[in-house]
Amino acid sequence: MTHITIDFGGTNIKIGLVLNGAILAHSSMPSYSGQGIQGRLDDAERAVRKLLGEQGIRMEDCTGLGIAIPGIVNSAERQVLSIHEKYEDAIGYSFDGWVRERFAMPFAMENDARAALIGETAYGAAQGEKDVVMVIFGTGIGTAVMIDGQVLRGKHHQAGVLGGHLTTDRQGPLCNCGNRGCLEEFASHRALRPRAMESRAFKDSVLSAADEMGYLSVIEARLSGDGFAAAYMEELVSHWSAGIVNLIHAYDPDAVLLSGGLMKSAEAVLPLIEEEVHGRTWTPWGKVRFLVSSQPDASVLLGLSKLLDTKSN
Amino acid sequence: MTHITIDFGGTNIKIGLVLNGAILAHSSMPSYSGQGIQGRLDDAERAVRKLLGEQGIRMEDCTGLGIAIPGIVNSAERQVLSIHEKYEDAIGYSFDGWVRERFAMPFAMENDARAALIGETAYGAAQGEKDVVMVIFGTGIGTAVMIDGQVLRGKHHQAGVLGGHLTTDRQGPLCNCGNRGCLEEFASHRALRPRAMESRAFKDSVLSAADEMGYLSVIEARLSGDGFAAAYMEELVSHWSAGIVNLIHAYDPDAVLLSGGLMKSAEAVLPLIEEEVHGRTWTPWGKVRFLVSSQPDASVLLGLSKLLDTKSN
Repeated sequence: MTHITIDFGGTNIKIGLVLNGAILAHSSMPSYSGQGIQGRLDDAERAVRKLLGEQGIRMEDCTGLGIAIPGIVNSAERQVLSIHEKYEDAIGYSFDGWVRERFAMPFAMENDARAALIGETAYGAAQGEKDVVMVIFGTGIGTAVMIDGQVLRGKHHQAGVLGGHLTTDRQGPLCNCGNRGCLEEFASHRALRPRAMESRAFKDSVLSAADEMGYLSVIEARLSGDGFAAAYMEELVSHWSAGIVNLIHAYDPDAVLLSGGLMKSAEAVLPLIEEEVHGRTWTPWGKVRFLVSSQPDASVLLGLSKLLDTKSN
Repeated sequence: MTHITIDFGGTNIKIGLVLNGAILAHSSMPSYSGQGIQGRLDDAERAVRKLLGEQGIRMEDCTGLGIAIPGIVNSAERQVLSIHEKYEDAIGYSFDGWVRERFAMPFAMENDARAALIGETAYGAAQGEKDVVMVIFGTGIGTAVMIDGQVLRGKHHQAGVLGGHLTTDRQGPLCNCGNRGCLEEFASHRALRPRAMESRAFKDSVLSAADEMGYLSVIEARLSGDGFAAAYMEELVSHWSAGIVNLIHAYDPDAVLLSGGLMKSAEAVLPLIEEEVHGRTWTPWGKVRFLVSSQPDASVLLGLSKLLDTKSN
């Protein structure tokens, strides 16, 4: 009954063996996603066999394999339809053929944020929720939506997953999706430094000297009294909140589930986001609840396993 | 088999008798919506009886009554949940009781934009469409969404209808919904004059002297060579397009159906909107088609009739 699950992330490939909604074992390797996915499949297979060997589980005893991809995925046909700046050779590639040849077991594929939401509603922080919007603040900003217990997929498989590509400022910078002023282009990890550098005050900030700039470094700089970081945080909170208000107004959820690197600092940022979102939303029925993922590294793998369960029923 | 349909608009109350997807007869009266709805119900009833009398149709031969409201409507319970700056006494009012007492026939109630979309997909410009987003550029900006043939309603009855309240500029003006920089607050009929007045160039425009300022007057002023109007139109097209991109990215439709006063100038504005939207959307499957309502004044009434059909099946 063990499921093999592979999360092809932009930075790391995570591999997990999942049994009954729990991760038995997992491993990780760099993805070098800019160089494509097909050249990484042999390594992924080796990593799966190694993990199985360590756990004393035979391949024949595994009942399914799931793959998550950070792009637009046709989960019915198990095809990648579109993906930007990473794994570009995944588009149109027959993962079916690879799985049949190397693993010979049932196979499920899904967009990573949708898999995460499925994992969180089945086993995680959103258990029992039926109307929930998930926002993952990672390198980019991923989203997924459940309405009345059904994951929203849409006609062309892209409903709910482009929440990072709703505009929060129409005059903003051009995004790699083609749109202008997307939430992701302003307030995701990958946008932090480019946007900061547009400010004159940045050069006087401790952040300008740092090698890397992530959510955590902005938050820490703000706590240390850095003037630029304080103003920048205010701007980021405004974008995050505007993005979340757009999702609430679009999908009418009971709850918003937040995850990703930013939520390592949930204590510092969540109260700011909650206050601004509650002040801006039109929700006459009450207040949207905020949830935070308790096992963000596991939710995609658990979601893939849940998808395989659903598939076999 | 005749249905009685009443569209409580912000400016006018429209009443129609509908048979087999066609309007037999209709009338209209001012709504004075700022003074509430309960005081208008007797007049609405009189107008219905007058219309029936003129057509020689007996009340007993009518098989249902439908009401559309420009607010958040629980269509299952036939209740108005929230509405801004008009018909405020409709919230919580028992329309059921009124219909039972005065008309004694099956009763359906829906948000006006959803009713319009139902009318357009059943009998109008969106016949046969199953994945479509409707945008009505009226006094405000109303929207409604159909995914896989189902009208999107959401947990609290507000999914799809708040598309005018997605932010297109997070630093924009405060909207009556509580949010900032909503599409409706920038680029609806009611916003045209307030936003224009924020520009210094406005006082030199022919528009500043006009008594009223609507979509048409901006478009005509631009055609006449008015410098302010030309720049303003460019800004409006940018907002309309950003708003439509947000809806495409949120709901993944095949088609976008436009209606409302702005579409009287479809020839002048639609090519501009189409070009900008196509350039900004992430739709690897192809291009979203644009449709324009061919009978914008009828779609709400026809949609209410369609709802009554569905109800009786």
